[in-house]
This record gives sequence, structure tokens and C-alpha cells, in this order.
Amino acid sequence: MTDCIDIHTHVVPEYFPPYAGKGRDVPWPSMSPAHACHRHVMISGKIYRTVSDGCWSVPRRIEDMGKMRVARQALSPMPELLSYWLPMPDGGTLIRYLNEQIAEMAALAPERFVGLGAVPLQDVDAAIRELDYLQKNLKFAGAEIASHVNGVSIGDARFEPFFAAAEQMDAATFVHALRPAGQERIVGLFPEQAVCFPGDIALACASMITGGIGARHPRLRIAFSHGGGAMAILLPRLVHAWNAIPKARESLAESPATTAKRFFYDHLVFDPAAVKFLVERFGASQIVVGSDYPFNMGDADPLGTLEKAGLEAATVAAVTAGNALRFLGLKAWEARD
Amino acid sequence: MTDCIDIHTHVVPEYFPPYAGKGRDVPWPSMSPAHACHRHVMISGKIYRTVSDGCWSVPRRIEDMGKMRVARQALSPMPELLSYWLPMPDGGTLIRYLNEQIAEMAALAPERFVGLGAVPLQDVDAAIRELDYLQKNLKFAGAEIASHVNGVSIGDARFEPFFAAAEQMDAATFVHALRPAGQERIVGLFPEQAVCFPGDIALACASMITGGIGARHPRLRIAFSHGGGAMAILLPRLVHAWNAIPKARESLAESPATTAKRFFYDHLVFDPAAVKFLVERFGASQIVVGSDYPFNMGDADPLGTLEKAGLEAATVAAVTAGNALRFLGLKAWEARD
Repeated sequence: MTDCIDIHTHVVPEYFPPYAGKGRDVPWPSMSPAHACHRHVMISGKIYRTVSDGCWSVPRRIEDMGKMRVARQALSPMPELLSYWLPMPDGGTLIRYLNEQIAEMAALAPERFVGLGAVPLQDVDAAIRELDYLQKNLKFAGAEIASHVNGVSIGDARFEPFFAAAEQMDAATFVHALRPAGQERIVGLFPEQAVCFPGDIALACASMITGGIGARHPRLRIAFSHGGGAMAILLPRLVHAWNAIPKARESLAESPATTAKRFFYDHLVFDPAAVKFLVERFGASQIVVGSDYPFNMGDADPLGTLEKAGLEAATVAAVTAGNALRFLGLKAWEARD
Repeated sequence: MTDCIDIHTHVVPEYFPPYAGKGRDVPWPSMSPAHACHRHVMISGKIYRTVSDGCWSVPRRIEDMGKMRVARQALSPMPELLSYWLPMPDGGTLIRYLNEQIAEMAALAPERFVGLGAVPLQDVDAAIRELDYLQKNLKFAGAEIASHVNGVSIGDARFEPFFAAAEQMDAATFVHALRPAGQERIVGLFPEQAVCFPGDIALACASMITGGIGARHPRLRIAFSHGGGAMAILLPRLVHAWNAIPKARESLAESPATTAKRFFYDHLVFDPAAVKFLVERFGASQIVVGSDYPFNMGDADPLGTLEKAGLEAATVAAVTAGNALRFLGLKAWEARD
């Protein structure tokens, strides 16, 4: 057993309570039985995804973590469940249920799990209140948010109060791709998660840079899924634009590279050479392990991918655990209790 | 002077003929005077972009090529001029004018320039006829096309006859980002070219892989702009999806990596470490020099960026010239005349 901390893992509850709100045709999720150890996530009468019991079963999760050599996981909702498209208060009700479910899972093995909960970003004030609840009542490390809220990038000024609050509360923010840009450009039978997530998360990351929120909140602890996607390639282009285009230069007080190197990125890129490139691009202190457990677009051997990257031992140690402790705001995991 | 061949450079004519078609409100371009050595490209009554005389002046171009240590350039239209949104026959008329302008520039210094012309992909049959004209009458190396045609990715089945013809005619195809996916997700004052082109060109490249055209036309010579953008990070994820998702696997006869490593990619990533990563990802035989001359989102020292990448001498030589000769279909440049 290593001390590996995996910051990118997802939860789907085994059940959802029936919809009890006052809306019509609200896409409230439900679960229905599937084949052994699996259940269907039903949304608007259709199977959104069929998921395995690793999503909700703590014993199954701990068994799989043993095989993956992962000591500790940060638990965040399957991104589609963030449900920013639900009206309030329904969205808030669903998100509170998700958070309580994650808290119950973490309570079964607090030395193995910490929460990254959901917040209803379709209502920024409510999101800030939920983040406060996550921190104070549930003792979570912070929140998972999506790359955009109903098409508006997270770097938009309307969301700055949320990030200011996260910075002030010392809460971690994990940004995950969702309903990605460019889906209409897919040809063939590869799913949107495969083709479009890397571009989508890079757009979210770019928005946090080019809109200035990243520069204005230097103590914000924020991590991007899927290695930041295209950002590792895009960043030098943003730096070139900042140098070459006066209005871009005047809009930002620091180089895009300076901002980007304060952000964290998981190592979910399925390739040791790409992991090494991420370390070189963003810094050995900014890369953390992420597996996307328990989904089939995840890395079943996240530590193996890291170990093959040809990094120095100190860097491997930092990516394995030290950087995640910093990102999650835990001096040491045990100090949390 | 090196033998460096730059496959990614753009042309804007000094003038356009007035619109002589029968449509109403057709966004036909025109040019108007700007400050010294510059002109405005006017489309639909607005300044689309202000461009410098490097766009049309062969002496200015040759002077700049000397500073950039570029021996030879492939000339392609500024992508917005590809004008796939124009109705036919207007689109075909504009494109023929562009191609004749490029041919006139190349004729002034045939040892320095070769054409990558435009084709009206909004009408695939007309595009194939224009490609034939480019090859037989204008002695171009091939065509520049955009990442998508009015929102439909180039990997869509409707465009397969064009790629089959290009393969059969032994014509090069240079794919450039245009009107990119994800523009609505930009925050702040960075332009779409800066933020969205890397994701956009990767979507085009992915479509040529996941739709199977790349696998079905293994002798097609095709290059992607901006280093293929996110593709260098995305490719291992596509390979993972091909292995993990049965319907993706069944849809493609070869691994996405096999297809991707037959494609060419320019080195326009503004960073020597990223150039090295491209070489490792796609192979030393598949990377070519691209500068985006004469635009401000270009690399003013493309050879310098390559030289700093820490590559072996043989690889530097291949990227500098040998790969471009193969991509352009020229055994040696001089053999063309």
C-alpha cells in the first residue's frame, strides 16, 4: 500500500428520493436495476449511464483501491448529477442529498475518503451557502464544479463571488468537464467524454486565466480534470497572445503562465510521456493523481502510469500524495479528524 | 539561409473584384486602405481584420523570409476567405480568384513558393473539380481546407469523396482551424484564434480518425495546423476509448494512434518543449514547420523554436525540410518545374 491520494473519483448514490418539488418535467434522476452489481442512472425517462456498485459501495471501493494501490480518494459526484439545469430550490435539494450521501460514505472509512461536494452554481449565493455547509458541517475538503454553468464558463464575472468565498474559506475546488463544447463536431461512435472532455476542461481553465479570476485570487486552490486537457498545449499560445495583442496584455496583470502554474491538474491523460509533459508545463508541485474511478473512461492503474513517466523520486512522491494534500488543504490526512 | 520549408503561411489579395453575382447580402470580401503597409479586410461592412502587406507583396514576403531563415513557403488563403458560407456559384468564383492570385505570387518566385489553394467544400463535386484545376493548371501542391464546413466536421462521410480524390490525385491537404468550437466559452479579451484554435483543430483531426476516413485512405497526405492542437494530449484518451468501449472498437479497424501517426502536424505551438512532445507523440517523420506568417498569432522565429527543442540533428533536418517535401508531394522542390 502506498500513500497515493486520488483526487478524481466519482460517486453515484444507490438510490435517489422521488421528486417532491413543484415543477413539471424536472429532469430529476432515479436509479433502476441493471445486470449484476450495476444500476441504470435514469434521467428524463432515459438511461443516462449504467454504473457499477463502486459508485456507492464503500466495501467495493476499498477492494478496488487495494488493486489500484490508492490509499485515499476524494469523492465527488458524477458530474451530470451537478444538475445546474434544475430550477431552484430543486437543484439545491438534489445537491444536498448528494452531499449527505457522500458524507455517509466517507464516515464509513474516514481514513480513506474525503468529500468534494456539489454546489448549486445556477444560484451563486446558494452555492456559497452550500460550500459553507460542506466545510463546516460535513468537513469536506471543498467542492466539485463543472467547466461551465449552462454554457457560461466558470471564469465569467458572475461566478467570481463563489471563487472569492472558496479562497476565503480555504476550500478546494475541483473542476470537471461536463456537456462539453464541440459535441456536435464528433463523427462516428466515440462518446463525448472521449473526444471532447480535453477541449472542454481547457476552455474552463482558459476562462479562469483570461477573465482574470485566477490572477485576482492567488490563494484559490483549484484543480482541473483530465490533466487540464488541451491547456498543456494551449498555454504557450495564450502567453504569445498576451505578448502580441495589446488589448489582451492590458487586460491581465500577469502572464497566463503565471496564473496557470498556480492551478493544479490531475494526471488523467493515459500516457506516461504526457504525464511528464504536464509536470514540465505546470510544475512538479501542481500535478495530482486522478483516476476517474469507477468509470470505464478511467485509468485502472493511475500509480503505474505515474511511475512509468520517468520522473525523479521526489516528483513522484509529490504527485502521489504531497500535492494532493496541499490541494485538498490537509496538512496531513489524519490531522483532519 | 537554410532549406527550411514553412507549410503554414497565409495570403490575402491586395484587392478583390467587386461582387458580380446575383445574390443579396452575400458576404463578399473587399479591401480598404489602412495605415502604412496595411489594409483592412472588409466583410459585410465590417473590418474582419487589418493585415500587412506581407499578405500580398512578394518582395516583402521574401525580405521577411530572409529574417525568418525560411527558404520556401507554401501559400494558403487566410482561412476566413475559404468562404464555405457563400452560395454557389459565388463561392466558386471567389475561390478561383484566390487561387489565381496565389498562382501569380508563386510565379514571381517559383523557387520560393508553392500553392495550397482553396476549394469550395460547400459543394463537394465542385471542390474536387477545383482540386483537379489546382493540380493540373496551377501546379499547386494541394489545398487548404478548414476544420469544418459550416459546422460539419471534415471527417463526416459527405466529405469522403473529396479525400478519396485528393488521395487519388496525390494532392496535399492542409487543415486549418476556422470559426472554432467553444468561442462562446471565452471570457475576457483574448481572441478566438488564441483560445479556441487548438481545440478546434483537434476536433477536426479526431473526426478524421473516429469517422474512419483516415483509416480508409492510408495514402492521403494531410497536415493539421497548430500542431494538431489538443490532439497531442487527446490521442491516448482516444486509444483508451477504443480499447475500453466495444462500439468504438468495432467501428474502427485500426487504433486511433495508427491513423494519427500517418497524419502530419505543423510545429506552431510556441514552445520548444511542446515541439519535442509533438515529435514524440506523432513521430519524427510527421512534424513540419509552420509559422502562420504574416499574422500576429504567428511564430516570428519558427526555426529557432525548432532548434531549441533538443532534438537529434536528423530529426531537426526532417522537420526543417524533408517531412514538408513528403507532405507537399515534392521529391525535391526543384523537380517540380
